[in-house]
Amino acid sequence: MNALYHVLGAKQFDRITLDQLFLSAQEMELVVRHGGTGRFSTKIMSTLFFEASTRTRFSFESAMHRLGGRVIGTENASQFSSTIKGETLEDTIRIISGYSDLIVMRHTDVGAAKRAAAVSSVPVINAGDGSGEHPTQALLDLYTIQKEFGRIDGLHIAMIGDLTYGRTVHSLSYLLANYSDIHIYFIAPDNVVIPESVKQYLDEKNVSYQETTDLVEVAKSADVFYQTRIQKERFTSQDEYNKAAGKYIIDRQLLEHMKENAMILHPLPRAGEIDPEVDMDPRAAYFRQAQNGLYLRMAVIEKCLVD
Amino acid sequence: MNALYHVLGAKQFDRITLDQLFLSAQEMELVVRHGGTGRFSTKIMSTLFFEASTRTRFSFESAMHRLGGRVIGTENASQFSSTIKGETLEDTIRIISGYSDLIVMRHTDVGAAKRAAAVSSVPVINAGDGSGEHPTQALLDLYTIQKEFGRIDGLHIAMIGDLTYGRTVHSLSYLLANYSDIHIYFIAPDNVVIPESVKQYLDEKNVSYQETTDLVEVAKSADVFYQTRIQKERFTSQDEYNKAAGKYIIDRQLLEHMKENAMILHPLPRAGEIDPEVDMDPRAAYFRQAQNGLYLRMAVIEKCLVD
Amino acid sequence: MNALYHVLGAKQFDRITLDQLFLSAQEMELVVRHGGTGRFSTKIMSTLFFEASTRTRFSFESAMHRLGGRVIGTENASQFSSTIKGETLEDTIRIISGYSDLIVMRHTDVGAAKRAAAVSSVPVINAGDGSGEHPTQALLDLYTIQKEFGRIDGLHIAMIGDLTYGRTVHSLSYLLANYSDIHIYFIAPDNVVIPESVKQYLDEKNVSYQETTDLVEVAKSADVFYQTRIQKERFTSQDEYNKAAGKYIIDRQLLEHMKENAMILHPLPRAGEIDPEVDMDPRAAYFRQAQNGLYLRMAVIEKCLVD
Repeated sequence: MNALYHVLGAKQFDRITLDQLFLSAQEMELVVRHGGTGRFSTKIMSTLFFEASTRTRFSFESAMHRLGGRVIGTENASQFSSTIKGETLEDTIRIISGYSDLIVMRHTDVGAAKRAAAVSSVPVINAGDGSGEHPTQALLDLYTIQKEFGRIDGLHIAMIGDLTYGRTVHSLSYLLANYSDIHIYFIAPDNVVIPESVKQYLDEKNVSYQETTDLVEVAKSADVFYQTRIQKERFTSQDEYNKAAGKYIIDRQLLEHMKENAMILHPLPRAGEIDPEVDMDPRAAYFRQAQNGLYLRMAVIEKCLVD
Repeated sequence: MNALYHVLGAKQFDRITLDQLFLSAQEMELVVRHGGTGRFSTKIMSTLFFEASTRTRFSFESAMHRLGGRVIGTENASQFSSTIKGETLEDTIRIISGYSDLIVMRHTDVGAAKRAAAVSSVPVINAGDGSGEHPTQALLDLYTIQKEFGRIDGLHIAMIGDLTYGRTVHSLSYLLANYSDIHIYFIAPDNVVIPESVKQYLDEKNVSYQETTDLVEVAKSADVFYQTRIQKERFTSQDEYNKAAGKYIIDRQLLEHMKENAMILHPLPRAGEIDPEVDMDPRAAYFRQAQNGLYLRMAVIEKCLVD
Repeated sequence: MNALYHVLGAKQFDRITLDQLFLSAQEMELVVRHGGTGRFSTKIMSTLFFEASTRTRFSFESAMHRLGGRVIGTENASQFSSTIKGETLEDTIRIISGYSDLIVMRHTDVGAAKRAAAVSSVPVINAGDGSGEHPTQALLDLYTIQKEFGRIDGLHIAMIGDLTYGRTVHSLSYLLANYSDIHIYFIAPDNVVIPESVKQYLDEKNVSYQETTDLVEVAKSADVFYQTRIQKERFTSQDEYNKAAGKYIIDRQLLEHMKENAMILHPLPRAGEIDPEVDMDPRAAYFRQAQNGLYLRMAVIEKCLVD
């Protein structure tokens, strides 16, 4: 058996693979526009979500259907599967991998996708493992930047919001280390700042970054604003949460400080941190970004099925 | 972009559209008998049920499969989707509509389907919005009448049960206003009578109707009996519920008063308001009616996908 | 209408049918290896799970997809369907059978599949009815034995664990009555021994069996070890459960007493009653057994759809 191509974390990708994936995603846009392909009509993808995420699951399932494939899935694997009878994740994966050609898994535990890949007889795609990683989200974020700017090298990127638990922020930071002359601004409330481990990785890779609290100042020079949602449960009181959540909102006022060709991204769902009045501005790229998730995931699925 | 054809409420249908849909549904019976069609093999339908309804969902999904299409779905969108993270319905629809060619939605809030249609990039079919409407149910009810009587004009139709909250009763009343010489009997327990708004609509459209409490008397002259389920939670005490629920039951005794070619319909599920001993009577059309739901929904899906 | 071929319980199978099914399952292995078939591309299978079982549902759905078919399903029929509105199982089945060509049903009540089959217009496969039966599990257990031993006649089979509530043990016992020179060992904690009804059936069919508590002694002579999970809720105290659950564990030590070509089966999930250190031993057949479920279920589905 050849080695399987799993998608487990952002650090596994080098520049060449990223370039290939983005080229493939671009082709997938054409495939979808022309009615999809029947290429993988004999393939079955399992979506095994131990934690529900309708949006992410739909995105993967739509991608597989556009590629002509078939899907079997569950969105409450934790509550209903044999897990509650005491089965290990490894046993579950050993069996499910015999019923499908690809497993897309979301789990609550960091490292779960890696454990699954270790025993699976088919490729595993990590669709989020707790506060760990969510590599296809970071890939589609980056694809959106590449697609709209035509390049990634040299961009200044502001990451805003919950930088401690926001796994897409970590994954995106790792991916950016593949590019030249990147500068990252980390802007977060005090109790959810970017972790040391991420900064250490960027240091090793010689990526320039700075932590700051002045969003207005950053607004003037950043090319990309990556806004994220702040979760209430990270704060000890409603009062503290309100203070943090209200601090870094992207609204019409902030738009006025931004460069004309800036880009606003958000992994979504949002809950107030981007004012809906921003939606109509051409710099608001978050719905296009969600759409790009389809094409990028088609590219990732293809890579897993043919490699 | 052309205007999309959404199915949101019964009032949107005129006589010509109804005739076309019923003709199409009749053709769909043949399509199914001959093994379905591959016509929409590149199309994806999303079933987004914020409130579970296995029967309705299965009916739509079967219809899409018989048309050769593909389905991605969730039956607990409310509990598990990004909704619980505070996302608006509008944001959800903006994204899901990028992953599919058609959205079938059930929601708990009146007007939700309309809100979805306003931001969707693909057609939206309302599969029930709270106590609002459930237009495809009313369409299949009417299709069943048309199919079995060969006509709708001139029929006398008794609507029985919960006429306040029974959304299919409202939708069916609106549809009937497209036909000539209709007479409607409304028969309901005191606290769940037909709303003023429905009566006003019928008045405007010059549809003849009357409210009555004597089911036996109506039994002698009505052509169609549209029985509905009474929900326990509408009553303040078990005692009151029992009195209301037991008042208008269709059983073998009532059958004796009915015309020989009368027709008994029910949107199902039933819970005692039609005695199972009635099932064997040829006038019991409710299971045929459920089957017609498949054909009618195939016709509706086709209309949305090609219009 | 011809009689439909339902799969309701193990007693319905005779030796000829079993031979045919196992031959068909063997062919299905080839079908899967060559990318599946489009044979049933116009057929729809409903998976109606009133009790969740991701593994069993995935196995059936994968089987249907490998046969080219389509699937509509629910894994929480009890919680969400019209059942909670008071609908009878019979009404549900009458309607669902109009939307699909085959129903696979799991239910909490003994006899539910039989009740469904009585009113269904399409074949029904029992995927577990409470503590009743789970015939396709028993079929795949037996298929695994046939496939790996090349025969079933003359084998000595040890059934271990919860023999009272373990429905697969009962179903497998009934199936074994079709073969010659079988000897069964029943090994169970005191409060979950094999029921009289099963023993009576074996007596009628002249199947040799014995109840014993000495697993080490049995280990020396049995060909097949059918291990099952013991459920905590069957015991009055944690202490009693621990005593029972810990009594008959298959571990490396027991392996040393077993014959060289013995076979260890388990319907899975397991929860400690087979030590993971056994997994690497070639006699551990339980993951191959789970994989065989796919092929066997393809054979069963084919039989239901063409008979």
